[in-house]
Amino acid sequence: MSLLEQLIDAFRILPGVGQKSAQRMAYHVLERERAGGRRLSEALASAVERIGNCERCRDFSETGVCATCASASRDVHQLCAVESPADRLAIEQATGYRGLYFVLQGRLSPLDGIGPRELGLDRLAERLAEGEVQELIIATNPTVEGEATAHYLAQLARKHGVRPSRPTHGVPLGGELEYVDRGTLSHAFGSRSEMPG
Amino acid sequence: MSLLEQLIDAFRILPGVGQKSAQRMAYHVLERERAGGRRLSEALASAVERIGNCERCRDFSETGVCATCASASRDVHQLCAVESPADRLAIEQATGYRGLYFVLQGRLSPLDGIGPRELGLDRLAERLAEGEVQELIIATNPTVEGEATAHYLAQLARKHGVRPSRPTHGVPLGGELEYVDRGTLSHAFGSRSEMPG
Repeated sequence: MSLLEQLIDAFRILPGVGQKSAQRMAYHVLERERAGGRRLSEALASAVERIGNCERCRDFSETGVCATCASASRDVHQLCAVESPADRLAIEQATGYRGLYFVLQGRLSPLDGIGPRELGLDRLAERLAEGEVQELIIATNPTVEGEATAHYLAQLARKHGVRPSRPTHGVPLGGELEYVDRGTLSHAFGSRSEMPG
Repeated sequence: MSLLEQLIDAFRILPGVGQKSAQRMAYHVLERERAGGRRLSEALASAVERIGNCERCRDFSETGVCATCASASRDVHQLCAVESPADRLAIEQATGYRGLYFVLQGRLSPLDGIGPRELGLDRLAERLAEGEVQELIIATNPTVEGEATAHYLAQLARKHGVRPSRPTHGVPLGGELEYVDRGTLSHAFGSRSEMPG
């Protein structure tokens, strides 16, 4: 395979990129963005090599504990559980939330072998048992599996005397949190309601 | 800027990739495609470093003369002029063309300072003067600038006793060759007509 074919092939690992888009990307870089291509190559190598997971919240982090968890200015009484780093980022960018996060890196899905252990819920339980957290904001996606995960997390929270809540208004059913517009997400996050037992 | 932010930023050099898509790409690579990300990084570095232009046809090539120009099985009597390497690839994949190519790497655009010299037309003239080429297939895009370029190339061909032709049927006016479906492009290429003086 020529270098050009290898490059086109390699671009296809990206989400939503098929043969035509991959060709277009490869030609664009070679025709007009060689410096940018070099920069992307280096950023990819560094990121893949050096970005791991935060020991506290499981979000992506270059350091053992991420900047948010290490920050002295966040409210340690609120903890927000999300499915993915992208969901965490969406909430951070759209809302004024100043508490901490816990990134599940997935959702409960017994058929796929994803149970509480795979989502680090033992670590979350320890965290809730420490007594600092007063509210667990459960911001899993409003899908079947996301709702099941939310239900499980709410029970876990109550077991440790922590109040579970869930963003409500405006998040469309069956949608993905990551793609909700900022205004809707901000409203839903602000008007969250306590979960009924 | 964190490594993650640098990666998201670097993805934005790609065509059609905005902030949201760039985030999605970065998270996708980190969550599910680390090996693929490493491969893309290496492919990009090699391509940017080692892919230059063929001395004969100006197409992208890792070697001084590209594989097509060096091939003994191509018909040296036909030469096809295209605007970009992507157009060349589209024709090569869609049609049964067995002649050679000349890649302009652009189109005549005096206002942008792109004249005959920038398109390597001095080299094309030498090539036509050699006497081997009998037909110049002018497959520039059916846009205003592409048509003007075609007109110029047709005159150049006639000056050297070479018959100019142009793919006709089916290529939609104002469209881009690169995006025409294979069937239409193949038909247009096959039914090309001689250009009137």
